[in-house]
Amino acid sequence: MNLIPGAVRRAAIAAVFMTVPVTAFSEQAPSVDYFSLDNGLEVVVIPDRRAPVVTHMLWYKVGSADEDPGKSGIAHFFEHLMFKGTTNHAPGEFSARVAEVGGRENAFTSYDYTAYYQQVAPTELRTMMEFEADRMVNLVLTDEVIGPERDVIIEERNSRVENDPSSLLSEEVSATLYQNHPYRIPVIGWMHEIEQLNREDAIDFYKRYYAPNNAVLVVAGDVDPGEVREMATEIYGKIPRGPKLEERVRPTEPEQNTKRTVQLTDDRVAVPSFSKRWVVPSYRTAEPGEAEALDIFSEVLGGGLRSRIYQELIVKQGIASSAGAFYQGVSLDDTSFGVYGSPRGEATLEQVEKAIDAEIAKIVDEGVTQDEVEKAKKRYLRSMIFARDDQSGMARIYGSALTTGSTVEDVAKWTDRIREVTPEAVQKVAKKYLDDRRSVAGYLLPEEAN
Amino acid sequence: MNLIPGAVRRAAIAAVFMTVPVTAFSEQAPSVDYFSLDNGLEVVVIPDRRAPVVTHMLWYKVGSADEDPGKSGIAHFFEHLMFKGTTNHAPGEFSARVAEVGGRENAFTSYDYTAYYQQVAPTELRTMMEFEADRMVNLVLTDEVIGPERDVIIEERNSRVENDPSSLLSEEVSATLYQNHPYRIPVIGWMHEIEQLNREDAIDFYKRYYAPNNAVLVVAGDVDPGEVREMATEIYGKIPRGPKLEERVRPTEPEQNTKRTVQLTDDRVAVPSFSKRWVVPSYRTAEPGEAEALDIFSEVLGGGLRSRIYQELIVKQGIASSAGAFYQGVSLDDTSFGVYGSPRGEATLEQVEKAIDAEIAKIVDEGVTQDEVEKAKKRYLRSMIFARDDQSGMARIYGSALTTGSTVEDVAKWTDRIREVTPEAVQKVAKKYLDDRRSVAGYLLPEEAN
Repeated sequence: MNLIPGAVRRAAIAAVFMTVPVTAFSEQAPSVDYFSLDNGLEVVVIPDRRAPVVTHMLWYKVGSADEDPGKSGIAHFFEHLMFKGTTNHAPGEFSARVAEVGGRENAFTSYDYTAYYQQVAPTELRTMMEFEADRMVNLVLTDEVIGPERDVIIEERNSRVENDPSSLLSEEVSATLYQNHPYRIPVIGWMHEIEQLNREDAIDFYKRYYAPNNAVLVVAGDVDPGEVREMATEIYGKIPRGPKLEERVRPTEPEQNTKRTVQLTDDRVAVPSFSKRWVVPSYRTAEPGEAEALDIFSEVLGGGLRSRIYQELIVKQGIASSAGAFYQGVSLDDTSFGVYGSPRGEATLEQVEKAIDAEIAKIVDEGVTQDEVEKAKKRYLRSMIFARDDQSGMARIYGSALTTGSTVEDVAKWTDRIREVTPEAVQKVAKKYLDDRRSVAGYLLPEEAN
Repeated sequence: MNLIPGAVRRAAIAAVFMTVPVTAFSEQAPSVDYFSLDNGLEVVVIPDRRAPVVTHMLWYKVGSADEDPGKSGIAHFFEHLMFKGTTNHAPGEFSARVAEVGGRENAFTSYDYTAYYQQVAPTELRTMMEFEADRMVNLVLTDEVIGPERDVIIEERNSRVENDPSSLLSEEVSATLYQNHPYRIPVIGWMHEIEQLNREDAIDFYKRYYAPNNAVLVVAGDVDPGEVREMATEIYGKIPRGPKLEERVRPTEPEQNTKRTVQLTDDRVAVPSFSKRWVVPSYRTAEPGEAEALDIFSEVLGGGLRSRIYQELIVKQGIASSAGAFYQGVSLDDTSFGVYGSPRGEATLEQVEKAIDAEIAKIVDEGVTQDEVEKAKKRYLRSMIFARDDQSGMARIYGSALTTGSTVEDVAKWTDRIREVTPEAVQKVAKKYLDDRRSVAGYLLPEEAN
């Protein structure tokens, strides 16, 4: 029996295909409480008294990039299994309770973390903690549970990837971009490996990774930090520490020497599109200031309506229907920087590619202006403020930061570090990392174009 | 102290960069003795009385594709370490003995196996067995041994890969071709991972993989099978069985959907070159008859002077200085089929690529002739006879077959199965596997071409 509301399942599905975007943080970091329980559980409490609502999130420091070779998809599969029954609660009981009290819940799996959350009235916080703590250790993992849920995941992959040429292409661009690191492998897993996942894999995964010493609890909302601490200590504190986990050291990229392309031609494609990606450092792996500069570079180059790519390709030349840039900086290991675009009207994909390349080359060669950088920072910081306005957005910032090697202090100083980015720093990272000789371009083409 | 003769070291180095070509086998398979010792060691004895020489080869069922993630290069590194001292013999003593008696020795590491061999007078066989059995268990692995040898490997990689653009390109073509399988990773290892290999890795590798139950002994030459059996039982038989090894199941490829290119532009390149590869089944993974058909297809398409590619591109059109096809069928898992070419005179790389593509398309569309297939079989079988003439070639055929999932019976029936290949079978594999939409092309370009 699966009582998880459709909306939750859909949201969980969506989250699989992207790193949760955490390009957002409040201009004034709120004062947060941060502490650890004796069993190793880290706790962050973020007071937000504006409404009688609390967000309760439990983050595990395990994602698809931690999976054993040949077991791709197990992290995401396990996220689904967490909605099954425990020795204390029937399958779906937790979700039913959330719905009953008018709350919302969700879960998502990424390369580096898996998270579960509920948003409810503060009076329900204790119940949420009890349910969440219960499924950290008491999950019932029988073949009767595993088999049907695996079919659900297979169907999910069918509808979201196999039937979507752009997803198929995106997977193979990643598999080409990363030659050694597991970010090469899709979060949802390769179909042929998902099909083989079994009870033993699930139990092994659960025992290894689902433990207080591998988790971060984030509570944001209309709560008293002292009370949250007491409650967490009482409920989560009684769970014994799990096995000592090895450091999360994954194979890293060799020096890359080649320019690569990946092309998918499919009769289901209506409009061609182009993307190009590079391996670049993340907030955790970058030299000081580089990740912040990459964020501002991404903003200047292709972050929304005021960006160079938008202004040049869409407004001025009118050759693209969409185009932009992205940087996934919140990542445990080296991550990627990308650009993308789709032609409009009579324009060709080649024109779009060349125009984007030209914008990058211009920044590499001539740099960016002080004014541009300041405006980009403002836009970037404003988006942080918007996120702060959303309680769960705030909780997500802390959860994703703490599960990808950053600290509460890093989060607190984030806005200041963004403010320190200079035009020189932007040009420097552009020059250093966006080398065309080490790029991977993806081309999605309609059948007739061949 | 390193007493390994330079020639041996050089030969060992060379072998790292290719799967040992085993496109060769005697037309009449000789009668061989095959048996296993109680400790699991498999033994093949191949009588060859033509000269007073014996080839003694020990094959381990471990290669680079068995390495743990992040430990690339350890299999090959370990091959080097096997030439160091044991508790019974000083470093270099074994090699010195081989040289002293006028023998030859060599060692090589591939994706699927690591092998050691000596060719000596039959009177020396016992001594070779004693030395070889000794280093299976008594190797001395101290930091004093590991450190300097790691520097040797680093230098080896520097000179053979880092300073050779075609090797760098070839590595990244493989890393692009295989999206999930460890054949993606170079046998010699990624530089940044080689640099981290240490004593603990070496000891772990030795304990796991160097044991009689993970090895195949091949003795070919002027010997009496009964005597070899006695000798092997006496010398190798006393080594205790090692830990039970898991089946060699590696991550397999997902369905591939894209056409990819990998391009390296380098000012050290004088003549541009082109290659294209596809993932295809190996002798172990293919449907019955497919691997044999792929071998004959490779012969018809681009195996030497009578092949279609050679005749068309080099003889008739005169646009290529070199061009051909290859299939690495002796492989534990799905392997690759490839074509390559370099332009000549005023011809462009594009012309060469198009001409090769055209030859493939012609076979896919129109098939091959009976006459062509018969001639290709003859050439193929003749090359087997040449190999048979070389005692160590024969030993290599058995060693590589038995360490990649084939049996002695498979080897014995190989020529018959090759004879059964039909023109229809060749066209069928060409059509089934050489789909351009799932190919990876490599381009090696001189700097000015950009």
